[in-house]
Amino acid sequence: MGLLGDRIKTMDDLFLHTLQDIYYAESHITKALPQMIDKASDPQLRQAFQIHLEETRNQIQRLEQVFRQHGAEAKGVDCPAIDGITEEAQELMSEVEDPEVRDAAILAAAQAVEHYEITRYGTLIAWAKELGRPDCAQLLQQNLDEEKAIDKKLTAMAESRVNRKAA
Amino acid sequence: MGLLGDRIKTMDDLFLHTLQDIYYAESHITKALPQMIDKASDPQLRQAFQIHLEETRNQIQRLEQVFRQHGAEAKGVDCPAIDGITEEAQELMSEVEDPEVRDAAILAAAQAVEHYEITRYGTLIAWAKELGRPDCAQLLQQNLDEEKAIDKKLTAMAESRVNRKAA
Repeated sequence: MGLLGDRIKTMDDLFLHTLQDIYYAESHITKALPQMIDKASDPQLRQAFQIHLEETRNQIQRLEQVFRQHGAEAKGVDCPAIDGITEEAQELMSEVEDPEVRDAAILAAAQAVEHYEITRYGTLIAWAKELGRPDCAQLLQQNLDEEKAIDKKLTAMAESRVNRKAA
Repeated sequence: MGLLGDRIKTMDDLFLHTLQDIYYAESHITKALPQMIDKASDPQLRQAFQIHLEETRNQIQRLEQVFRQHGAEAKGVDCPAIDGITEEAQELMSEVEDPEVRDAAILAAAQAVEHYEITRYGTLIAWAKELGRPDCAQLLQQNLDEEKAIDKKLTAMAESRVNRKAA
């Protein structure tokens, strides 16, 4: 049996592992967002990312609180999913020259990141409730609400672009 | 400039690239789902995956139709995102021994996959409309609707599990 099997025997272990996964992902995103801000040309998009960078830092603090509530040390585990999502984003960002096309690609990449977080938070909230930890669920819900709000904002920006083009 | 920059100059190129990305992802999922069916113990979960495997095959055919409508050859491009998401899933599936904990992990992994597809289809639909291709958008919408339905079904299964535990 590999490393994971040694560590994950109960729902409690699985919750902690997934918490470490999203903790790694959020930390990774605080490094990816400044690059996205740098590469984006649309001022609205840059501003949305800037606000979300601040939100992400708060989310990390909430996750650290969940670790404490759970009696565990705050640490990340490798998350090939978020690595893969941001690898795709970085490739597009650095190689597409047309600023408008690049913005569209960056916006789409950001939504892929948000959706990864949305699914993980949804799962963690369900498990926190299952484990009888409404205190953890409540903090995770705050992060989920913020992720859904930024995703909605990005969708509205993508659609206003479509409407602009159609006009 | 790298390979991507040579290929992606316009929104049309970006649409095609992302279509190739989701085509690779869906094909990859037809290989991952049988393993998930094999490793899952809950009969309801196995059945949901079995139905979704059939849906995925139909979705691939719809994507091939979108490629034709777009005058392009149906082919995939490497998608590190879906590789990463399924890599995480496979690691958990093969190493967690407790069947109940493994089912929870498999269900969560499937939702991460669905969310990746949901975000990509959302993006592709917006771009198809922007490019004046409602015919492509309509087919992609059918795939999106199916992905959202399976995600909703999986959420209901996760929640009924929570309620069962709380009972």
